[in-house]
Amino acid sequence: MLAVAVLALLPFVQVRGQEPTKTIAERLGYPRDAKLLIVHADDLGVAHSVNAATIKAFETGLVNSGSIMTPCPWLPEIAAYARANPQADLGLHLTLTSEWTSFRWGPVSPKDRVASLLDKDGYFYLTESDAAAKADPKQVELEITAQIERARALGIQPTHLDSHMGTLYQNRALFEVFLRVARSQKLPVRVAKAWAGRADYLSLALNPDDVYIDRVLDINPTVAPQDWAKFYTDALKKLEPGVTEVVIHLAHDDAEMQGVTVNHPDWGASWRQRDFEFFTSDAFRKALQENQIKLITWRELGKLIK
Amino acid sequence: MLAVAVLALLPFVQVRGQEPTKTIAERLGYPRDAKLLIVHADDLGVAHSVNAATIKAFETGLVNSGSIMTPCPWLPEIAAYARANPQADLGLHLTLTSEWTSFRWGPVSPKDRVASLLDKDGYFYLTESDAAAKADPKQVELEITAQIERARALGIQPTHLDSHMGTLYQNRALFEVFLRVARSQKLPVRVAKAWAGRADYLSLALNPDDVYIDRVLDINPTVAPQDWAKFYTDALKKLEPGVTEVVIHLAHDDAEMQGVTVNHPDWGASWRQRDFEFFTSDAFRKALQENQIKLITWRELGKLIK
Repeated sequence: MLAVAVLALLPFVQVRGQEPTKTIAERLGYPRDAKLLIVHADDLGVAHSVNAATIKAFETGLVNSGSIMTPCPWLPEIAAYARANPQADLGLHLTLTSEWTSFRWGPVSPKDRVASLLDKDGYFYLTESDAAAKADPKQVELEITAQIERARALGIQPTHLDSHMGTLYQNRALFEVFLRVARSQKLPVRVAKAWAGRADYLSLALNPDDVYIDRVLDINPTVAPQDWAKFYTDALKKLEPGVTEVVIHLAHDDAEMQGVTVNHPDWGASWRQRDFEFFTSDAFRKALQENQIKLITWRELGKLIK
Repeated sequence: MLAVAVLALLPFVQVRGQEPTKTIAERLGYPRDAKLLIVHADDLGVAHSVNAATIKAFETGLVNSGSIMTPCPWLPEIAAYARANPQADLGLHLTLTSEWTSFRWGPVSPKDRVASLLDKDGYFYLTESDAAAKADPKQVELEITAQIERARALGIQPTHLDSHMGTLYQNRALFEVFLRVARSQKLPVRVAKAWAGRADYLSLALNPDDVYIDRVLDINPTVAPQDWAKFYTDALKKLEPGVTEVVIHLAHDDAEMQGVTVNHPDWGASWRQRDFEFFTSDAFRKALQENQIKLITWRELGKLIK
């Protein structure tokens, strides 16, 4: 009887065994071939120009997510926006670098408790490689936890976490701290399935129960300014099914932003103005429609966390 | 013999007794009736707009002194200017308040060592009265010393010290800390003889050997925008002999400064633009000439310190 029963179950077992793992799109309740996009503005809180351009872009509905740098001086301005717009999809852009030379910031926690994160002037290091090479993971945990606590104290309810300049993806020890803090906070992190081959430890966040996206799309300095809209329009035409996050950097090309990014055209003031112009344009709206791309948010992804 | 000797000395003693104390102008080597003026821009380092407008004003030669807020994010930009222009008359605007609501800053020293200086969000208090009421003088000494050390570490050689929003003049304990630190650094402080009646402890800095100025001139919110130039021109016409410091606040009326000073017209963006326009104008240059006013700096005053 047992043998018969087992045989009778076999076809079912085989079907289950062949059934592919559900994609993130499917886990969110969308068809497997749905093209889902998060339009995500980084670096909120750095400068008034960044806050003002991003808030303006949020108002178009075409940019629908962003993340905040709590150590930066313009945090109170974007925190006020977050309190007034509790539905906004705002995460935290955990920050361990201070990359501009004329304008800098340091930690949220007391400096003497996170000395491994600071340069001789008491600011975060200029580069993610210096930051990662020198950071004591315990001090990183203290600092990023303090950043999350400061955000919550100011009334921000973060929907997700990511890492400014990718510092927390630079080595296994930092990535483990990042995941541990995110899991304890029950917040999704920016990790893409497409990154799996980049470093073995990224697979720590790519288990079937984890919440991740399929890929990140971002522009880079090889694209000439006049080709900005074409780069994004082409990428949207070729967008693969699943969850893509397009990571953008918005600001106005004004005196403040020119001062922040002085001598640094990459991710500079006119770069950010070009991103602002494309992602608030009718051309972008049309590309979303023509390519049947649906906008989703980190808030939806966060609901998958058990 | 003794009585005769004493009598013989009396006329000399009397003459010495009647001889007026040398004025600061005379100690500097100018005639007693010279009209000497320091044109001093406050708040360097707060914002790019402040730095840019003040540097532009320095280049005219009509604004010839300023002071820097080392806890503020744009410190590195003005420190680079100081290193490139070692002759510039730059002091430190010691900072224990963070008065704008959208944009804030905290201490140079570790937060857990200066907790009495910080509000619940970890920033300096918004007002000088809150700051003064809550500050532990020992923590003030630690913090203002750290501010001076950070400035020197960045290559700023301060010529003088003053106090942002006057916090260090709010009570005797803070003023004593301010004087002790200034004397140990052999730097002159902004103290005016004309302030003597305001608080008895100010006399601690007004001894014959101390270096002080005669008076401070500054505009206030009762002056209508259209009367800006008239206020200053009239004040220059009536300028008394001795050393006057006109304390001004320069910035451009741009998006950044409007963001910093949002909902606060007093000392706001257009206020600072008006100061910039008057103090870089031909009208100001002419007023200096017509009223025979000579510009001097804190560097000259500092040379009187023994």
